[in-house]
Amino acid sequence: MTSSVIAKSATLGKGTTVGQFCFVGDDVVIGANCQIGHHVTIHNDTQIGDNVRIDDGAVLGKFPMRAANSAVTKDQQLPGLTIGHGCIIGTQAVIYRGAKLAENILVADLASVREDVTIGRKTIVGRGVTIENRCTIGAFVKLETNSYITAYSTLEDRVFVAPCVATSNDNFIGRTDKRFDKFLGVIIRRGGRIGVNATILPGKEIGADALVAAGALVTTDVPPGKIVAGIPAKVFRDVPTEELLDNQGWEDE
Amino acid sequence: MTSSVIAKSATLGKGTTVGQFCFVGDDVVIGANCQIGHHVTIHNDTQIGDNVRIDDGAVLGKFPMRAANSAVTKDQQLPGLTIGHGCIIGTQAVIYRGAKLAENILVADLASVREDVTIGRKTIVGRGVTIENRCTIGAFVKLETNSYITAYSTLEDRVFVAPCVATSNDNFIGRTDKRFDKFLGVIIRRGGRIGVNATILPGKEIGADALVAAGALVTTDVPPGKIVAGIPAKVFRDVPTEELLDNQGWEDE
Amino acid sequence: MTSSVIAKSATLGKGTTVGQFCFVGDDVVIGANCQIGHHVTIHNDTQIGDNVRIDDGAVLGKFPMRAANSAVTKDQQLPGLTIGHGCIIGTQAVIYRGAKLAENILVADLASVREDVTIGRKTIVGRGVTIENRCTIGAFVKLETNSYITAYSTLEDRVFVAPCVATSNDNFIGRTDKRFDKFLGVIIRRGGRIGVNATILPGKEIGADALVAAGALVTTDVPPGKIVAGIPAKVFRDVPTEELLDNQGWEDE
Repeated sequence: MTSSVIAKSATLGKGTTVGQFCFVGDDVVIGANCQIGHHVTIHNDTQIGDNVRIDDGAVLGKFPMRAANSAVTKDQQLPGLTIGHGCIIGTQAVIYRGAKLAENILVADLASVREDVTIGRKTIVGRGVTIENRCTIGAFVKLETNSYITAYSTLEDRVFVAPCVATSNDNFIGRTDKRFDKFLGVIIRRGGRIGVNATILPGKEIGADALVAAGALVTTDVPPGKIVAGIPAKVFRDVPTEELLDNQGWEDE
Repeated sequence: MTSSVIAKSATLGKGTTVGQFCFVGDDVVIGANCQIGHHVTIHNDTQIGDNVRIDDGAVLGKFPMRAANSAVTKDQQLPGLTIGHGCIIGTQAVIYRGAKLAENILVADLASVREDVTIGRKTIVGRGVTIENRCTIGAFVKLETNSYITAYSTLEDRVFVAPCVATSNDNFIGRTDKRFDKFLGVIIRRGGRIGVNATILPGKEIGADALVAAGALVTTDVPPGKIVAGIPAKVFRDVPTEELLDNQGWEDE
Repeated sequence: MTSSVIAKSATLGKGTTVGQFCFVGDDVVIGANCQIGHHVTIHNDTQIGDNVRIDDGAVLGKFPMRAANSAVTKDQQLPGLTIGHGCIIGTQAVIYRGAKLAENILVADLASVREDVTIGRKTIVGRGVTIENRCTIGAFVKLETNSYITAYSTLEDRVFVAPCVATSNDNFIGRTDKRFDKFLGVIIRRGGRIGVNATILPGKEIGADALVAAGALVTTDVPPGKIVAGIPAKVFRDVPTEELLDNQGWEDE
């Protein structure tokens, strides 16, 4: 017995369970052996793979809001949210329509993933993380608690972002008309790593396997394989050989 | 058909829709053509204008909590929450009794607005933003994702606060009895702008059209029209003419 | 009349009220005179004392999620969540199975408390705070809005952590196998205080009654009773006598 409200046009796979007080909208497709918690909202057209766990209070497939005053959100046609096999979606997480998640991703509690975002497999989106609209996030990425990924950013595979990292995309800080043409997300190349509470300015590129030290303020591009630190961040040495991505023995299993 | 529980003394305007599993309390008044999502809680005495969108899981009109140990929360009589015409309230947002929101405000997902807060029209309160109690926020303000506005702060019209900005109000950091008389919020004058992950100390005033650079630590007042940067922040030049508020061609439409 | 779903094996004390659309699981025990809000989820085996307030949308006793890719979360047997008499749990807060909260604790809105965490009495866990797994938090501690406590940390009694403070526990930033043996939380001794938006690196110890200034980056241990500031943080003077913990006239009432 469930108190949940499930649209007639929704389909649930074999072995999938739904908790109390859930809402499942029109044309939602949920695979087999999924566990849906309590108070979960799944909006129209969302497609969910097999063996997915969705925790209490999560909201999936949310339609974007449009502020009278917002610089980057426009009316648009968005496809339904897609969540791949084996994903885990945390409590109170909010994932928008128009996002696309590959397999075996963890989106932890209270995290936000906006529209027009793609995330590669086995990536971890930590507790309270925000991925703004129009971001591309690779596979095997780790975004730790409360890190903030600004709109229009690209993070390649095996990127590591420590807790409370901040990014921005507007060099004009809300002024002049030309800013609308120049929103620039951050770019973090394969295996780039960002330390706790560091800040990255608009459009800056962190090279492959580079490391931004904790608390640093990145105001210029960071060369591959270098460590930068300070405010503003300056190169101070190479990443130790033993910490280079190619020396971890990791396979992209 | 709705599963929602709506008090008999609540009134809903023409064209207003309510999703599943909502609770609407005594003497709530909701205007016309509003869209209330699923799992929304609207506590007693809340008043909502026309054309308001309230997303899933939002909690409106919450009564403050009182900790045995809190410095600033006391028993008080608070009027019901007021939300003006055309506002949009995000998923899982929490807005307290005793707050007053003007028209066309966006409060994004997972944001918090405490008691004794007023917010002017067309302001954007970003995802995960916290506005603590006893703040006054002007019109056309932008508070970006995860920015934190300490209690007793004043932000005038057209202020811009970038993501992850931090503020504080207690110079005694929880010690001495005299701190109780000296909580000082931050003051940001008309058009003042604060860069990503900057920090503002208690009672500091950011002058009109001044700019605090990303990652700066503001330990003294900032003169109008100046840019400050660094830790601690120091003046290093004027805001470019093209970025001054009066040169944007904005009307307070 | 309530729409809530309460397991037959759950027991509720005299005078306890439950709002709309709550779920209370098997073998939950709730004491007397508690107020449970709307949309609250209380998972199996949770034990709650008397005079506890639990606000709308809170999720208590959540089972940990296990990511394919996570460094520190393993399968484990966890006891049910315990919440002591007189606690207040905020809106949308998430507290995991295997946590243990003493009496008169406030966990504010949107805060997260993970498994294997103990919290002492009269501590305040602020809005949006995260306490990761395997932390020990003392009594009379204040963790202010959005502060982040990394896994394996110890905070002794009367610690004060200002808003937006960041901590970390992995000196190897996600690389090398030896990191698994060397996760080191932060240690804050009795009465230690951390200023707004400061950052503490893995394993660093903040001495008793020491003070880390706002925005500082702590890269070495901080001696007792000293103030440190800057990036990296350096000692610059003693904590004023009037601010020392022993001079506050506080009793551990």
